[in-house]
Order: sequence, then C-alpha cells, then structure tokens
Amino acid sequence: MSDLLWQKPGVAVDAQIQAFLAGDDVVLDREFFLHDIAASRAHAEGLQRIGILSADELAGIARELDALAEDFSGGAFVLDERFEDGHSAIEARLVERLGDTGRRIHTGRSRNDQVLVATRLWLKEKLARTQALCVETAGIALQRARAEADVPLPGYTHLQRAVVSSLGMWWGTWAEAFIDNAARARDTHAWVDANPLGSAAGYGVNLALDRDHGTGALGFARMQLSPPYAQLSRGKFELAAIEALGSAMLDLRRVAWDLSLFTSAEFGFVALPAQYTTGSSIMPNKRNPDVIELMRATYASVAAARSEIEQLLSLPSGYHRDLQLSKGALFHGFGKGLQALALLPDLLRNLEWKPERMRAALEPSMYATDLAVDMAKQGVPFRDAYRQAADPARWAGGDPAASLAARTSPGAAGDLRLDALQARLAALR
Amino acid sequence: MSDLLWQKPGVAVDAQIQAFLAGDDVVLDREFFLHDIAASRAHAEGLQRIGILSADELAGIARELDALAEDFSGGAFVLDERFEDGHSAIEARLVERLGDTGRRIHTGRSRNDQVLVATRLWLKEKLARTQALCVETAGIALQRARAEADVPLPGYTHLQRAVVSSLGMWWGTWAEAFIDNAARARDTHAWVDANPLGSAAGYGVNLALDRDHGTGALGFARMQLSPPYAQLSRGKFELAAIEALGSAMLDLRRVAWDLSLFTSAEFGFVALPAQYTTGSSIMPNKRNPDVIELMRATYASVAAARSEIEQLLSLPSGYHRDLQLSKGALFHGFGKGLQALALLPDLLRNLEWKPERMRAALEPSMYATDLAVDMAKQGVPFRDAYRQAADPARWAGGDPAASLAARTSPGAAGDLRLDALQARLAALR
Amino acid sequence: MSDLLWQKPGVAVDAQIQAFLAGDDVVLDREFFLHDIAASRAHAEGLQRIGILSADELAGIARELDALAEDFSGGAFVLDERFEDGHSAIEARLVERLGDTGRRIHTGRSRNDQVLVATRLWLKEKLARTQALCVETAGIALQRARAEADVPLPGYTHLQRAVVSSLGMWWGTWAEAFIDNAARARDTHAWVDANPLGSAAGYGVNLALDRDHGTGALGFARMQLSPPYAQLSRGKFELAAIEALGSAMLDLRRVAWDLSLFTSAEFGFVALPAQYTTGSSIMPNKRNPDVIELMRATYASVAAARSEIEQLLSLPSGYHRDLQLSKGALFHGFGKGLQALALLPDLLRNLEWKPERMRAALEPSMYATDLAVDMAKQGVPFRDAYRQAADPARWAGGDPAASLAARTSPGAAGDLRLDALQARLAALR
Amino acid sequence: MSDLLWQKPGVAVDAQIQAFLAGDDVVLDREFFLHDIAASRAHAEGLQRIGILSADELAGIARELDALAEDFSGGAFVLDERFEDGHSAIEARLVERLGDTGRRIHTGRSRNDQVLVATRLWLKEKLARTQALCVETAGIALQRARAEADVPLPGYTHLQRAVVSSLGMWWGTWAEAFIDNAARARDTHAWVDANPLGSAAGYGVNLALDRDHGTGALGFARMQLSPPYAQLSRGKFELAAIEALGSAMLDLRRVAWDLSLFTSAEFGFVALPAQYTTGSSIMPNKRNPDVIELMRATYASVAAARSEIEQLLSLPSGYHRDLQLSKGALFHGFGKGLQALALLPDLLRNLEWKPERMRAALEPSMYATDLAVDMAKQGVPFRDAYRQAADPARWAGGDPAASLAARTSPGAAGDLRLDALQARLAALR
Repeated sequence: MSDLLWQKPGVAVDAQIQAFLAGDDVVLDREFFLHDIAASRAHAEGLQRIGILSADELAGIARELDALAEDFSGGAFVLDERFEDGHSAIEARLVERLGDTGRRIHTGRSRNDQVLVATRLWLKEKLARTQALCVETAGIALQRARAEADVPLPGYTHLQRAVVSSLGMWWGTWAEAFIDNAARARDTHAWVDANPLGSAAGYGVNLALDRDHGTGALGFARMQLSPPYAQLSRGKFELAAIEALGSAMLDLRRVAWDLSLFTSAEFGFVALPAQYTTGSSIMPNKRNPDVIELMRATYASVAAARSEIEQLLSLPSGYHRDLQLSKGALFHGFGKGLQALALLPDLLRNLEWKPERMRAALEPSMYATDLAVDMAKQGVPFRDAYRQAADPARWAGGDPAASLAARTSPGAAGDLRLDALQARLAALR
Repeated sequence: MSDLLWQKPGVAVDAQIQAFLAGDDVVLDREFFLHDIAASRAHAEGLQRIGILSADELAGIARELDALAEDFSGGAFVLDERFEDGHSAIEARLVERLGDTGRRIHTGRSRNDQVLVATRLWLKEKLARTQALCVETAGIALQRARAEADVPLPGYTHLQRAVVSSLGMWWGTWAEAFIDNAARARDTHAWVDANPLGSAAGYGVNLALDRDHGTGALGFARMQLSPPYAQLSRGKFELAAIEALGSAMLDLRRVAWDLSLFTSAEFGFVALPAQYTTGSSIMPNKRNPDVIELMRATYASVAAARSEIEQLLSLPSGYHRDLQLSKGALFHGFGKGLQALALLPDLLRNLEWKPERMRAALEPSMYATDLAVDMAKQGVPFRDAYRQAADPARWAGGDPAASLAARTSPGAAGDLRLDALQARLAALR
Repeated sequence: MSDLLWQKPGVAVDAQIQAFLAGDDVVLDREFFLHDIAASRAHAEGLQRIGILSADELAGIARELDALAEDFSGGAFVLDERFEDGHSAIEARLVERLGDTGRRIHTGRSRNDQVLVATRLWLKEKLARTQALCVETAGIALQRARAEADVPLPGYTHLQRAVVSSLGMWWGTWAEAFIDNAARARDTHAWVDANPLGSAAGYGVNLALDRDHGTGALGFARMQLSPPYAQLSRGKFELAAIEALGSAMLDLRRVAWDLSLFTSAEFGFVALPAQYTTGSSIMPNKRNPDVIELMRATYASVAAARSEIEQLLSLPSGYHRDLQLSKGALFHGFGKGLQALALLPDLLRNLEWKPERMRAALEPSMYATDLAVDMAKQGVPFRDAYRQAADPARWAGGDPAASLAARTSPGAAGDLRLDALQARLAALR
Repeated sequence: MSDLLWQKPGVAVDAQIQAFLAGDDVVLDREFFLHDIAASRAHAEGLQRIGILSADELAGIARELDALAEDFSGGAFVLDERFEDGHSAIEARLVERLGDTGRRIHTGRSRNDQVLVATRLWLKEKLARTQALCVETAGIALQRARAEADVPLPGYTHLQRAVVSSLGMWWGTWAEAFIDNAARARDTHAWVDANPLGSAAGYGVNLALDRDHGTGALGFARMQLSPPYAQLSRGKFELAAIEALGSAMLDLRRVAWDLSLFTSAEFGFVALPAQYTTGSSIMPNKRNPDVIELMRATYASVAAARSEIEQLLSLPSGYHRDLQLSKGALFHGFGKGLQALALLPDLLRNLEWKPERMRAALEPSMYATDLAVDMAKQGVPFRDAYRQAADPARWAGGDPAASLAARTSPGAAGDLRLDALQARLAALR
C-alpha cells in the first residue's frame, strides 16, 4: 500500500491489523469511484470560487480528474490494494500529476463527507434504476392485463380454490403493486436528495465553503445543512433506500412464488421458456425453474443488507469507523436486488399461460359466493343467503365468463379500471 | 364464544385449537374497533346507494353503529372472548338489534377487506401521530439551537475529542433529523392512503359497489384498485409504516446514546431532572437515567415488529391466515415506539447543560484542524499544512468562541442556517 | 403503585414517565413469579447459613413465601400495577407480614440477580418443554414411518416431480429433524444451566454468600461465577434459548408448508380432520386449513422475539435498563412458539393420506434416475447413462413399489434405518 | 463456460439469465473446493467398495483428485467462470484426465449432496476455529485476571458509577464469557457432525452405497440418515453455526464497547498500542481506535449472514435453488467474524491500563453499598440500612483495596475462583 494519508513517522504497522482495517474497502470503492471523482471536481470548483484554488489550478485538477475517470473506466487505472481507499487514490493521483496543487484538494473536506457524497450520488442512481424497473414491470403487467383480461384463472385463498379469477385481475395485481413500488422509490429518492459535501468531519470547517455551488453542480435538490446530522444520516439514508428496494423485492418474491406453484405439474398453469429452466446433475428427466427460485430468494440478500446496516447504528452521534461496513452491505443488497429485478420485465413478457389447465381447475363450488350475493341482491339477508348458498346442489350452472363479467365491483374482473392505473403509471415515468 | 360466522353444523370444535386460532385476536381488535365501525358505516352507506339497503335500513345501521361506538368507548360494551373477532362482534350486534337488516351488512364484503380497511385507517392515524411528534421534537430542537447557539461543546469522532463543537450544532442535528423523519412519515402516509374496502376476499364481488363513496367518506386519497393487490398489500404497507417510524426511532436511540454518555460522571455534560431517573434496590447511592435507557431500547420493539411482519410475507398471492399475526406485531411496534417518542419533546425541553464541564473538556489539540485550514487559506497546500498543524507546539492560543465564529461553512457553528430548517419544518406542520 | 423501593423523599414522580418505565413489567412478572419466589427462598436459606437470618426468621420467610405462592396460584393474590414489579411485591409481602425480618430478605442481592435467576429457571423449564414436544413429535413420526413405510408419494425438487418417494421417507424426515431439535434444546438447556443468584448488581457483595447452597437448592448444574458476566449473559442466554426453539419452529414451518400444498385441490394428498379447518365469512364453499397456516406463521413470532432481544445488546458491560425489554420479547416468543409446537404431535397423528391421489401424481419420467443408475451398475459410465436415460421412450415399465424397494442407499426407502433413529430418540427422552 | 452438465441440445442459453443463475457461485466454491475434492474421494472409495469402480479406476481417481487439490492450492488450477460450479469442475477434470472413469464419479450422488457434504466439512472446520479462538481469548483473560486481580476499576451500572470493581472482575467476565462461547461452538460442532453424502438429490438412490465408509473416511461422528432431511438441514445447520459464532461476536462487541469508552479522554482507563489506531484525513491531532470500532461493528456481518440464510427457509421440503444463496452468506459471516475474532487475543494481551486514571474515577458514594451490607451484617434490617447508607456523610473512609478484599461472595473480587474457570477451560482445549 502507498503511504497512508494520516501516517505518522515511527508508528509500526501490523499487517494483519491493516488487512482487517482495509477489508475489501478499496475494491468496494470501485463501485462509486466515478461519483467520488465527480464530487471531487465539484469540491474543487467550490474551492476556486472562494479563492483557495486559482483558475489555473482548478483547470489542472479538472483535467486530471477527467483523465482519471477515463483511465478507470477504460481499465488503464485499476483501483486496488495499492491504495488505502478510493478517496486516497484520487488525492494521490492529483499529487502525482500536479504536485502542490494536488495537495490542496483536501482543503475543507474530510473523507467523512467524501464518502457521504459519493454514496449519496450512488444511492440516487440506484433508486432511479429501481423506479425505472418497477415502471417497466408495471407497464408490461398493464399490457398483458388488457390483452388477456378475460381469461379465467382459479382464485385462491389459503391455497384453496375460492372463486373464479382472471388473468386481468392477476396482471392487475402486479401493475398496481409495481406502480406503488415505483412511487416509493421516487419518494425515497426525493428524501435522500440532500448534499452532504461540505460537512467535513461532522463539524463543518473554518472556511465559507460555497456549498450552494456543489449542491447545484452535483444535481442535488437541497443541501444537508447540519454537519453532525450529515454523519448521523449515514446508514439511516442507506436503510431507507434498501427498504424502498425491499418493497419491490417483496412483490417480486410473490410473483416468483405464484410462478413456482403455477409451473408445478399439479397446477400446470404456466409454461416457462426454456432459458428460464435448468437441468439436474443426477435426474435426467428434470427441467427446473431455477431462475424463478433465485428471483424469489433474492429478497434474502436485500434483507441481509438491511440487517447489516441496521446493526451498525446503535451508537452515539459523531463518526465511528463501524459505519465502514455499511458500504459492502449496500452494494450487496442493491447489486443482487437490481440484478433480479432487471430480469422481471422479460420474464413477465415471455411466460405462457395454459388456459385449458386453468379452466380445468375451476369447480362448481367456486360459484357459491356469486350465488350468495345474487340472492342478497334479490333481498335475502346476506347471512341467510350465505347459508343457503353453501348447498352444493345449488352450484350447478356456473360459468366462468358470466362470473367474471358480473364481477363489477371497481377493480374486479368486470371493471378492471386499467386506465386509472395507466394514469398513475404515466406520472412515474 | 358465540357461534362462529362460518360454522357448519356437526363439526366438532377443539378447545385447544380454537384457542390457538383465536390467539389474542379479539383483544387486539379493540385497538381498531372504532375504525372498523366507521368503515362498516361507510360500507352500509355504499350498499344503500346501490339499492341493497333501504334508507331506513341504513339509518338503523348507522344508529346502532354509533351506539356501539359509544358503548365501546364508554366501557358499556367490552370486546372480549365472547366474540371470534371484532368484525364478528359488529355483525352480531347489528343482528341482535336489527334482525334481518343486520344480516345484510356483510353483503359484498369479506372480513379480508374489513380488516384491511380498519388497519389502513389505523396506520394513517399512527403515521400522522409520528409526524406530529417529529415536528414537535424538531421545533424544540430549533428553539434551543437558537437560544444556546454559541455554547461550546466538545465535538467527537470515534468518541475521541476532535474539534470544538457547539450546542447550536448539537441541537441543529436533531432539528434536521426530525424534520426528515416527519417528512418520511408524511410521505408514507400518502403512500398508504388507499382504500381497500370493496376488494372483498381478494377477487371483488358481483355487485357494482360504490367504492368512490367509501373512499371519500373514510377520507382516503385514492382507491386501491386491484382486489388481489389489496390482499398483497397487507404486510407490505405495514412494513413501510413501521420502517417510517423506525427512522425516527433510530434517531431517538442516538439522542438517548448521547445523553447516556453525557450524564455519566466521566462526561458530566448534562443533568436530567429527577423525574427521569430512578434508584437501585441495593445501591443507596444511585440515581440512574433509566428513562433514557428505555427510550434507547425501544427501537428494539419497533425492529421486532418489523421482523415479525417481514417473516410472514414469503407466500404466493391470495389471502393466507398467516397474516393474522401482523396485527399484534403492528400494535406492539407502534405502541411502544410512539410511547417513547412522545416523551422526547419534554425530555429535550427539560434537560440542563453544564457548560463549565463542557468547556473543561476542550483541549488544545482541538484547534489543530482550524490551524491547518488557516494555513491552507494562507496558501500552504493542505496536505503540508496538515503535517505542520500536527505539532502540539502550535496549538496554543486556541479559543472556543473564536473557533466557532470562524466555522463559517454553511450549516456549521458560524452559519447555522436555522431559518432554512425552520422553513422546512413549517411545511410539515 | 405502592412506594418505590428506591424512592427518595421530595422527588416528584411524573405519571407518563412512570407508565413508560413500568411498561407492562409487573404483568409480565406473573410469568415467572413462582420462580422468583422459589429463588427468594433459596436466597433466604443461604442467608441463614451465613448467619444473616436466624432459623426462626428463615422459617417465617419460608412460610410466607409458600403462602404467597399459594395465594398467587389460587388467585387470592393478584400481581398487578399496585407493585413496581414482581420483585418488589415479594419484598413488600414479607415486610407486611414479618416486619423487620422481611426487611432483611434483600441483604446481599439486587433486583439485577433476582430477575436473572427467575428468568434462568423459566428458560430451563421452557427448554425442557421444547425438548419434550420435539421428542413427542419425533416419536409419532417414527411410528407412522413404520406403519406407512411403503406407501408411494411423489418426490419433488424445485416443486417439480423428481423421483418416487414414500411415506416412510416423508415421516423419516420429521423424525430425524425433531430428534435433532430435541438434542439442540437439551444442549442449550445444559449451556444455560448456571446459577446467577449471588452476583448482586453485577459486582458481587461484601458477604460470603453460600452460592453453592443456592445452586443446589434451585437445581442448577453449576454456578455462574463472574458477577459482571452474569449481567452480560442477560440477553445472550435468552438469544441462545430462542434460537434453539427457532430450530424446531423452522421445521414446523416446513411441515406446515408441505401440508399447505398437500391439502390444496391441486395436490390433494392430505385430508385434515375438520377441527383443523375454518370457514370464510363471505364464501360459503370454503374450508380452510387455518391451523396449518398459523402454525407456519408462528416462526415469525419467534424471529421477532429474537430480533427484539438482539437489538438490545449493543452496549458496554454493566447493567442497563435497556435489558428490561428482553422479558416481554422472551415471553412472546416462547409463548407463541410452544403453543404452536404443542399442536404438532396431534396434527401429525391425525392427518389422513389419500394414497390414490399420491399414486396418480406419479409419472413415468420419475423412473429416469433409477434407470440411469441401473445402467451405471451395468457398467455404462454414469454421465453417458444419464444422457441415455433422458429419453422418454425408455421410461415405460417403472413401478413405484419396485423403485422404492430398490432404493437401498442407507436412509432411503429400501433401507430406512428407523431403528437407528429410534435409538437416538430414546436417549433424548 | 464449459458445457453445462445437464445441458440438452437445442436449448438456447440467455447470457443475462446465465449470469444471474451463476452469480458468484464458482468463485465462492473456491472456499470449500478442497472439501469437495476430499468428499469426492470418499465417494469414489465407497463406489469401489460396492463394485461400481474397479480398484484401478479408484486409484486413477484418487491420483487425479490429489493432483487437482495440489494444483488448486498451488495456483496452477484456477476455479473460475469457465465452470458452472466447483462440482462440475471436479467432474470435468476427471473426465478430461480419465475419460470414462471420470464419467462414473457422479454415480449415486447429486450436486445436492455434494454441496451439502462440502459445506458440512467446512462448517465443522470453522466451528473448530471459533472454539479455538474463544479458548485462546479466555486463556489470556484468565492470565491477566490473575496478574492484575487487585487493581481497582470503577464498576458501572447504567454507565453511572456504582461500586468499586477490579481488573480481576473485568478479566473474569471475558474469561467466563469466552469459555461459554467455546462450549457452544463445541456443542454446535457435535450437533452438525453428521454426514449427508449418500442422500443424493434428497431421496437416496437405487444403490446400496457404503455410507458408513464415507462417514468414517471424512471424520463424521454419525450419518445423517433421512435423505429428505439432509436437504432440509441445509440452512438449518448453517443457521445454528452462525448463531454459535454470533454468541462469541456479541461478547466481542461488548469488549469493544468497553474499550471504546475506556480509550476516550473522559474515561482514559486504557491505552492502545499504536498499531490499533489510525489517523484522520483532515484532523492532524487525531489517533482513533478504528480497530476496536471495526471489531465492534463486525457482529453486523454475522447478523447479516444469519438474516440472509433465515430468509431463504420458508419453503416446502425438497431441494429448491433458493438455497444457493446460503453459501455466500455463510462465507461472509464466518469470513468477517473469524477475522475479527482472530484479532481479539492479541488485543487483550497488549492493552495497557492506566491505574491512576481508574483510581481517580472512584468516588466516596461507591462505598455506600458496602456500608449498607455491613450494617445488615450488624443486624440492621437491610431495607433500613439501605436508607441510612444513602447519607453522604457516612461515605467517608472507604478504601478500594478494603472494599475489594471484603467482596467475598463467590466470583467477586475477594473470591474470584479463577481455578474453577481454568478447569472448565482446560476441558475445552
């Protein structure tokens, strides 16, 4: 490793301890290295505006930061264990190329606000991606809801056959679910959209930093004002973001659960395109819906990330090194979560129904509720109608199409109101 | 227990199993019994609007629901184990008082949407309460930030003395923190503000229910359209609400941590009014800050509630009885959480600082950072200034007031920007 | 509330704060009030042995403690909000009845070790109960494994039909699972079987307490020696106990999942006796396996308890009031968990299989693996055999009975080795 | 990637989906590749014993497995994305080197039991390591407890000064804590010490596999008999192992918390050797105890691993691909956890006390409890003594050495009973 920024002469360094301190920090820092560079540039611009850097110095720094970003993206620069962390790597590069000018870049900032701002920019990007994937998912669900609105599907409660449902209602479920998930990602994005750069180590600095400039340059909606609160929000904002992602992942898990059942031989309602299945190492006869199972499982990685961050936060105020562990957790949760979520739109687009199997699973008892309500319409008190309708002799003559057409409570098969969902969706794009 | 609504003749009932099924359900239902009654009234109004109930029948139902609400609030009616649950109790009362009219109330609804709507109303109330308590807390923090802005307080990182901080910055932390928490409670309130009544057992019903009426009558911002999604949102919405509360509770835990340290003899920065302390059963000399410790601990109850609900949700779509357990968890989390949060404003209002102890904890090294930045202002590259400022010989002459006054980065002691926080707060009241 | 033990004159008491401090503590203390009384007696005996109490005084205390236990069990004494907690109630009763003798009972102990020892006794009881229920469950599974060993059942992986399985193997699963769960409960019981009484407030006391006597009198296997560690073990031991219970609950959840699928119309392998099902409030046709679903759900309550306790433990050493919250969590987790577990033996005893449905779900592809292995036995390299056996044309002629009989790898259908399981089980009774 | 084992001709493979399915699986498999090789050898030996492989074939396989292990350890063979997973890599190597003989290795096993046995061997190794580190930690604590037994240290409850404590008691805490942790690791090791190899895909196989041989050859204490249970135990056993590690990590967190406080300027009881501290990027004056903070934080990684695995287990029986995610979680939890735990012995060995600061923090009130007990010994009822001893006028004349010497309750400063702890420790080595 290159010299540590804060190293004092004569202090021995223990290799095992250094390895523990470093963890995989510098490797993780690759994840938001470009954000760190962008924030460094905004910081330098601010320093020039208050006279700490000359216009020439700023130009040099900007040029070298651009070059570093390009080298990093292209692979010419590798962020690795030669550096304590990404923050040090940026400063080291500037010093190497610009000498004293590089030694000025850290004026008025700390690695504490540097990591905060890079994480914040990264979080915003991931929340935007979450929103976009939810919007895409809802769009496909709406499209298929329209196209397959009237295809009958058994409706279950307690995994027991209950009443006739429809593909219109099944798709409508996911449309509204992912509209809500997109809305939550958007709200959370707005909530975390606050610039911590300029809070230094958590107590500000004796310089009138131009934080308004940085806030605008980096595209933040507002400044995070209190420097100790900027520190305190580390972990707190990450949790909120993970929780917003979690909302979508919970619904992803439920779609996957439905498809796991529906692709079993016993249900047999859905066929998956072959690319979603794999074989067995011992059983020659198997095609398994592994993709669906791993999508279902991925909520676990998001929950783990949440748990890891949550466990770090029982602390007094002020920065503590404990918070370093939030970084890996965050990348793990969003990494796995978004990878699974990104597969959902195509999966939904491509799955094929087996309408004859779905129809075969309808049975006369599933018209009993219709019957009871019909009797109630005729004036029989519902509780009496309910008792009479329990008689299997009365269930004959039910018909799925008629049952669905009569289901006119708003949102149900006979009145799906997809336009209203479409309108909410449009506002989220 | 009175007869079960769905009871069929000739089926034996096992006492141990019934006890397990019932759990403490009916007792928990007290928590939102009034909401259940209010929603029943809106449902009855809707039924009248589509001709299922006559105007007279509706009047009778409305009258009896009002009477039941009054009896319940006044203690004349006790919701207890005589009933399977609160929902059944309402229907039983209407049947008892109104005969066949009462037997019509359940037309077009299920206990599934009944519990959903009661829970939703309750959630909205609790989120509003969360928001209000956060607003109150932030208000006090702002007030004390202004009043005590310039009082020096040691600033710590890693629990090590770092730089001079101030009460202005300490209070500013909690002001901004609880403004954010209030905003999140508000956003979450808006997100869950959707009416599930009319989704029946999760597949709608063969009646053109007037869901718009119910939505308006109960004060919902929108209708939750898809009936299966209404079911799917059970647990999901509860989680989001608990998570919003959790955000405030995490900050409450951190205030409590600060105060736990600050009331130790070693720090000695804060004196708690006697009502916040208790004694020991064996040690005559002790006054312990138990209130602060229990406030700190309460995040655990909120986390437990979140965990309990989260664990229920790995299921295919459609209603499952598993979800019943979400109710107790929710009440536990919000019950304990809001109880603790409600004590925070007064605690913050009443705590007393010991400025002389705070000042005594400042030491010369805490001016080293100021010095480094001052040198950087003079043109010394920061990284060089940093090395020179590490020399203790240079630390003499630091002064807390001067250090704070010079801390002019926006949000820091020399430029607290409390007006900006005040403006955000005003928008949340 | 009666006077607080530690109350000092002139300190005002705030009702809202007192309510928060008290929580539902005194009500929770009912749960282990008898254990607290038993430990108080052991403590008094120890005090007499070192001369703090006379033989007469001890006799008086013993008599009054017996009477209190009897009054409490019989309902003549109600532990309620008149008392700060159960510990204070015991002391108050002794003082009321015995005057100065009662005032001696707290010599050399603190409420800190009092609550520790009561909790520890309670934990041991619940772990023993957990073990007993697991043993009972495993016993029934073994019995049915023998009785129904050769009944074919489809074997699934990924919820896809894989190979022929059997009831012998299905029951064997739960036999071995609950043997392991019983073993873990037993190990955990041994691990927590350490007496904390005599550790006082966490630093011991200036009396040569006869802790060996207390340890023996209360049936502990060893003394917990270090007084600060006794404090530190609060929460830690509770977590271990909850985790041991959790192990059984995870398996209970999986049995319930199997039965939830198997009782669906699509699988149709299992019929539940009517007492395990309930009806719907709106759908006359439904009989739902609610008991199974609530059993499946109960893991959530155990997980919540674990989470609540875990969240309390990020603390320095020494007692903190935070730990009070562990009590309610513990009672919630074990209360709900054991209630569900207690239903399992009868459920397993009573469920009825539908062998014709199970047989109908077997299909020719499920013999492909047998075929591949048979070819491997004949000398075809397995990887080639695997490819050839994937050809549906070769699957004809498979027979469930033959397939099961040939499955002779140890533990499989052809060699179940139930005697070995029986032997492990016998050692756990 | 090389051809997939189960690939069927004509099925298109989607790159994004394959990337999702593969995850970082093959990289993770490096972690237990040597265990997989060892288990493959035991499996081959078993196949030879039942005539599936000739002696020559076995010799070839054994030779090539040894070579592979050597190549892997030495870096000549890299397990990477060329392979679907480690299991396939082993088979591919054997086929490449041995042709048809290699194609026989998978006879009678599945990747399902292959991953189970490799994980199980790995778990045993990690639990043994956990035990060893706990034993080492307890040993150092005992050693320092003897050496520094009588050095006074303030004893806190609620972070308030309570009574005089001692280094003997502080070290005794960790001695007994880590003895318990070692015992739990040992118990858990015994609990998971069951061989799943031979359970195939969860339903056994139509071969009389010599599972006794494999069990002995791999050093397992017993066979895991039921093949479906072997599948079911995936995740369950991992959870138990993580929980055992968690027990040690909770105590590690508490040691770290104590040291975090004790190294603050306000307490100032402990000096850390320089290698345990780091500097700040902005504040020249800082030396921060980062190592201690990261050790404290590491419990979070263990909790995350537990949470990730726990979330996967709400499933019916039979293998599901969901379980794949347990692997990364397990490696993360044990990887981070053991890395932190491995630093503890040296940290405890090297930390330096500042006895004069500790003594300066003692104050007269800390003798009040001694006084009350002394009065009780003289015959004053304790509750009266307690009131009298609350009078500060009586606290004069206390002396730390006398207070500690008189603390003769077993385990306390005057009777530490370190020999009893030493005896328990010896049994765990």
